[in-house]
Amino acid sequence: MGKERDGAGQVRPTTSLSPSAEFPPLSAQDIETLRRLGEQWRVEKPARALPVDPELRPSRPGAARARGPDEAFRPDQPGELTATPAAERPDTSRGRFALRVRRVLLGPPLSSMSMLRERMRKLIALPVLSSDLLSSVAYGPEALLTILVLAGSAALGLSLPIAAALVVLMLAVGASYRQTVRAYPHGAGSYLVASDSIGPRAGLTAAVGLILDYVLTVSVSVAAGIAAITSALPALNPLSVPLSLAVIAALLAGNLRGIRVAGNIFAAPTYLFLVAIGGMTLFGLGQAVARGFTVIPPPPVPATEAISVLLIARAFASGATSMTGIEAVSNAIPALRPVEWRNARTLLTWMISILILLFVGLMLLTHLNGLVPRANETLLSQLAHRTFPHGPWYPIIQAATALVLLLAANTAYNDLPRLLYYMARDAYVPRRFLHMGDRLALTNGLVALSVAAAVILTAFRGRTQALIPLFAVGVFLAFTLSQVGMVNHWRRHRGSGWRRRAAINALGATLSAIVLVTAAITKFASGAWVVVVAVPTLVLLCLGIRRHYDRVRQAVSLHPTPTQLTSAERSEREMAQEFLPQRVHHLLVVPVARFDQAALRALAYVVSLGQPALAVHVSPEDQEADRLRDEWTAWGDHVRLETVVSPHREILEPLAQYIAQLRERQPDITLTVVIPEVVVNRPWQRFLHSQIERRLRRALRRLPGVVVTSMPIHLSEVHPQATR
Amino acid sequence: MGKERDGAGQVRPTTSLSPSAEFPPLSAQDIETLRRLGEQWRVEKPARALPVDPELRPSRPGAARARGPDEAFRPDQPGELTATPAAERPDTSRGRFALRVRRVLLGPPLSSMSMLRERMRKLIALPVLSSDLLSSVAYGPEALLTILVLAGSAALGLSLPIAAALVVLMLAVGASYRQTVRAYPHGAGSYLVASDSIGPRAGLTAAVGLILDYVLTVSVSVAAGIAAITSALPALNPLSVPLSLAVIAALLAGNLRGIRVAGNIFAAPTYLFLVAIGGMTLFGLGQAVARGFTVIPPPPVPATEAISVLLIARAFASGATSMTGIEAVSNAIPALRPVEWRNARTLLTWMISILILLFVGLMLLTHLNGLVPRANETLLSQLAHRTFPHGPWYPIIQAATALVLLLAANTAYNDLPRLLYYMARDAYVPRRFLHMGDRLALTNGLVALSVAAAVILTAFRGRTQALIPLFAVGVFLAFTLSQVGMVNHWRRHRGSGWRRRAAINALGATLSAIVLVTAAITKFASGAWVVVVAVPTLVLLCLGIRRHYDRVRQAVSLHPTPTQLTSAERSEREMAQEFLPQRVHHLLVVPVARFDQAALRALAYVVSLGQPALAVHVSPEDQEADRLRDEWTAWGDHVRLETVVSPHREILEPLAQYIAQLRERQPDITLTVVIPEVVVNRPWQRFLHSQIERRLRRALRRLPGVVVTSMPIHLSEVHPQATR
Repeated sequence: MGKERDGAGQVRPTTSLSPSAEFPPLSAQDIETLRRLGEQWRVEKPARALPVDPELRPSRPGAARARGPDEAFRPDQPGELTATPAAERPDTSRGRFALRVRRVLLGPPLSSMSMLRERMRKLIALPVLSSDLLSSVAYGPEALLTILVLAGSAALGLSLPIAAALVVLMLAVGASYRQTVRAYPHGAGSYLVASDSIGPRAGLTAAVGLILDYVLTVSVSVAAGIAAITSALPALNPLSVPLSLAVIAALLAGNLRGIRVAGNIFAAPTYLFLVAIGGMTLFGLGQAVARGFTVIPPPPVPATEAISVLLIARAFASGATSMTGIEAVSNAIPALRPVEWRNARTLLTWMISILILLFVGLMLLTHLNGLVPRANETLLSQLAHRTFPHGPWYPIIQAATALVLLLAANTAYNDLPRLLYYMARDAYVPRRFLHMGDRLALTNGLVALSVAAAVILTAFRGRTQALIPLFAVGVFLAFTLSQVGMVNHWRRHRGSGWRRRAAINALGATLSAIVLVTAAITKFASGAWVVVVAVPTLVLLCLGIRRHYDRVRQAVSLHPTPTQLTSAERSEREMAQEFLPQRVHHLLVVPVARFDQAALRALAYVVSLGQPALAVHVSPEDQEADRLRDEWTAWGDHVRLETVVSPHREILEPLAQYIAQLRERQPDITLTVVIPEVVVNRPWQRFLHSQIERRLRRALRRLPGVVVTSMPIHLSEVHPQATR
Repeated sequence: MGKERDGAGQVRPTTSLSPSAEFPPLSAQDIETLRRLGEQWRVEKPARALPVDPELRPSRPGAARARGPDEAFRPDQPGELTATPAAERPDTSRGRFALRVRRVLLGPPLSSMSMLRERMRKLIALPVLSSDLLSSVAYGPEALLTILVLAGSAALGLSLPIAAALVVLMLAVGASYRQTVRAYPHGAGSYLVASDSIGPRAGLTAAVGLILDYVLTVSVSVAAGIAAITSALPALNPLSVPLSLAVIAALLAGNLRGIRVAGNIFAAPTYLFLVAIGGMTLFGLGQAVARGFTVIPPPPVPATEAISVLLIARAFASGATSMTGIEAVSNAIPALRPVEWRNARTLLTWMISILILLFVGLMLLTHLNGLVPRANETLLSQLAHRTFPHGPWYPIIQAATALVLLLAANTAYNDLPRLLYYMARDAYVPRRFLHMGDRLALTNGLVALSVAAAVILTAFRGRTQALIPLFAVGVFLAFTLSQVGMVNHWRRHRGSGWRRRAAINALGATLSAIVLVTAAITKFASGAWVVVVAVPTLVLLCLGIRRHYDRVRQAVSLHPTPTQLTSAERSEREMAQEFLPQRVHHLLVVPVARFDQAALRALAYVVSLGQPALAVHVSPEDQEADRLRDEWTAWGDHVRLETVVSPHREILEPLAQYIAQLRERQPDITLTVVIPEVVVNRPWQRFLHSQIERRLRRALRRLPGVVVTSMPIHLSEVHPQATR
């Protein structure tokens, strides 16, 4: 169940997904209103028996049941059928072809009942959850050095102090997250934590920061993974953008198919990466020890900027991207084995430790080898080349890096749709993000992520270093808000030792905020402004969406909010009019253009309903109106005809206004306008019809209390079932 | 009246326009069917009195009548209202703004009753009808010489013999048209003549030829008119395309406004042109006489092609564009004073005579002055410069030429919409070409012509000589078919002297055919292929449109064609089912997603109609289905509920198929599916709703016997009238 409601209709969010989230249950108050309305329900005459069995039972027993596998609906219990795959088959050949392609690519549909709630043990959870974090060392150190080297090779000596500062940051944020995980054992994502402990707008801001982070994670990780490949195989360099897009498409297909349930495939590449990078670091340090720790001087690079505090701050903020992905654990707590929070904390400790070891080792090795970032080869590739000039080690390291980066992108495919799902439940994003596709994946979120990441990757032509400046701001915004939220949390709950805990989170929040501000300011011109503009824009958009959904909810909710008096009054009046059949008074209106089969069918239809009916004809000329009236008389004048002469030959507006005025005279009636409409077979044929029906329908939609009925007139009445 | 029907329902076309053409009257047979059906009409229970006065009379006399000018509908006679301009006012502010702009540009709307059937006297008719023909001498001779000069200046001597051949052609076609006008006194356009005397396909081919001709007339005349201006003011040369488009926009606006009724404004420029060109010719010939008829040798031009029969034929076909516009009289016969055909014949004689005089004079003068076509200055401009080196004459001649060319374009604006109107009456082009706008103009035809001409003019960058090759083929195709039709006509009717008459038309037809074939072959590569491809393509398109309309007519006609047995049988069965109220059996189906106001309204609506009703809920999970059923029970179970569990969470297809299967079980019932739909205020908000309603409506449209009712749920039930 997506939400749990208490007696007062208040909603407490849960972190598990449900296929029924699109259909939230009613509150107790709603059900009470229903019961009250149901008691007042009166029917003028008893409804006749249904002319057809709604359970679709065979009329002659045994006869039709023989169809077996083609049967679209299976009886389930009284009043309930279950749709079989035959009921989902589209009835156009194009639709069926698309479905077949889909089945081949994504596999057969999965039933709602097969929702897996598998728990991961720690040795599986470590690689699954850490690929995003650990893979960050593939671009973080390079991002740091790329900034420093702007001040010439001499500035590269600063890399070690900056790395030390980053280690402090990692420790602080890690400790902070360990506490968050303990405090929110059902899911400690920044959106949930900040919403709960600061307020909905802070949560929304954190969520928007995370959305940008996830999209950029995909773009950056895929670009960096492809860079690892093109570093090894320079011939592929010109193909890097198409290759990246192909990877995104493969990730989309894989996630639509739902391979994420098979978490084991994550273990191998992540452990391979750990072993490969760890091994290289140890071996490289061994080489350095062997040559007496002499630092190979870097090649002279001309300085294009002076060394300044700003430059150092930029380098620091760039290097901080090495710790993106740390939040993966907090989102995944419910997927761990019990005791969940304890396992999550252990995992966090492991991951931070490994991260720091890898990061420090790589920074040191780079410094000792005097390496400098280059455009066509990643730093990691240079390091691998330098450390293992011969043998199979270089390709293994590059392959492991590429794989783990692609897995890191996959983390975003896991987390973003889930975040959008939570946000959709709170009505901040379109409700379609609640929908689970036929493979139980959050289809719309997956598609949205892929499209956004592909657009960004293409716009930046797959250059990792160009994307980095956009990256840090979103992540550290979410980090900061989450940790500030934790400080609030402790202050509110004041458990034992809350001051110490609050201090740890406050340190994490402060350091994250420093990185956030540094990144936003120092990288503003080189791309961060996009994020600085996007965050408030998206927050406003989400608030607008929420406002719209709130209005819709109010318009259709069973008990109007008592604070809105006018709305309550209105609703009382409406309830009297429109919620009880005995209060609905009908007038059926048939616009007649010509006296043909279409008009006759519509007239027979309205008259057979036994309600007052009126035919309206809009005519360009008196003579034409008289002619139609003569035809009407010949027919027998069975329905009252009103002609409206429109001397300027406008049809639509006078008709719509006439109907509006009828309703204005008698606001109590429900007007049903019955419009016969020719159904064309091909789209181009639509141009051959005036489409006045469609335009009329659109014009009438604006009028309250006017119901529009379309009577399709088919050119060839071939039964569509027959062509299946 | 657009068509006149005889007893058998056969249609005889008339050439006058009618605002009611969109609403053709029923045949006697149709009315008989109506009478028969009306007699079988039974109503289960007598219809109750209408709950509102359809004549919109004030409930308290005197009270509401006071509104006066704002009143949208005036009572006319019992059962008839007349819409006032207030009824045409759009109810969105954007729509009202567009209307205000329209009124300023095009003037107030004109009533159908103010259709003018003004007749022109000959002195007015001459300039009105001849501007197209006479203005052709502004580009025809130049087109001829442009081809000849390809063979060098020496070849220019051939211009006089070719001109003589063209004079023969003009005489023959002129004599031929004199006879056509006599034989078809109600309108002798090529479409009508060829349709009547050869067959509908020939008529259609002629019509397509004429359509291309008219579109090119506008492009060529406007381009040539602007060329006359830029020859005088070379600074405007780079602006020629935007200027041309502005002229087309002005022609469109003027014709939408309907200034064509003021034919008098045509008289002045055409007569000015006649006087100016005639005067120049006489003066120039006088100069030639004065210098003893010595021919000034043309400047040496290098030959790029050899003189050949092909080249001469091309020059001849190009020169033949001098006689485009000769068909204007035959279209306009009904607009002349009685005896119409006699006046038309007289006009034709005058026009041909003036054409020949101008054409011969100009050819002679060009030859005597040794002029050669140039890219930046028209031949006529060179001639005017040479003849009147000083004084005000040169600008007068250029201005008169430009004006008369723009008037010639206006001829197409008169004739093409009318041709499309005739074709729409015969269902070869979309019916919207029958519609007369609020200024009684054939709005859609005018817009279509302007768009097509503007596209062509832009595509050819306003170069008259590049457009000429496309021009001749269409015109002479129509000429040929019309005259071949006349030969048929005489052979069929065999009146006195039919052989002589047939011979005259046959000569015209033969010469026209020669020009047609010559133009098509010799100019194939330089552009005529477009026309050669376009004519059959458009003919096929028109036939496809006709086929579609025929199917629609059959689907809605009151008496099915007896030749189609299956259709007749089907129609009999359907008539029993759907044309008589006592045979319509209802089942109302309400898809329910959630139990909210929208669902309750829909349920109250269907139950109040007193017909059997069924609610259907498609659910992704058993639990969710059970929950809804509990809510249903709490409400009181007033309507039978059927739940369909769709385990793969697909909603649309199972719902559509369930409804299809209900109908399949009981094909006699008319299923009405009532879909509550939230009406959003802004387009972007549509993205926030699943649009399952719209998709369901689209899916259900394909099913026969399924009627779809949309119940709008408004977010704010502000009465739209209140905001006006």
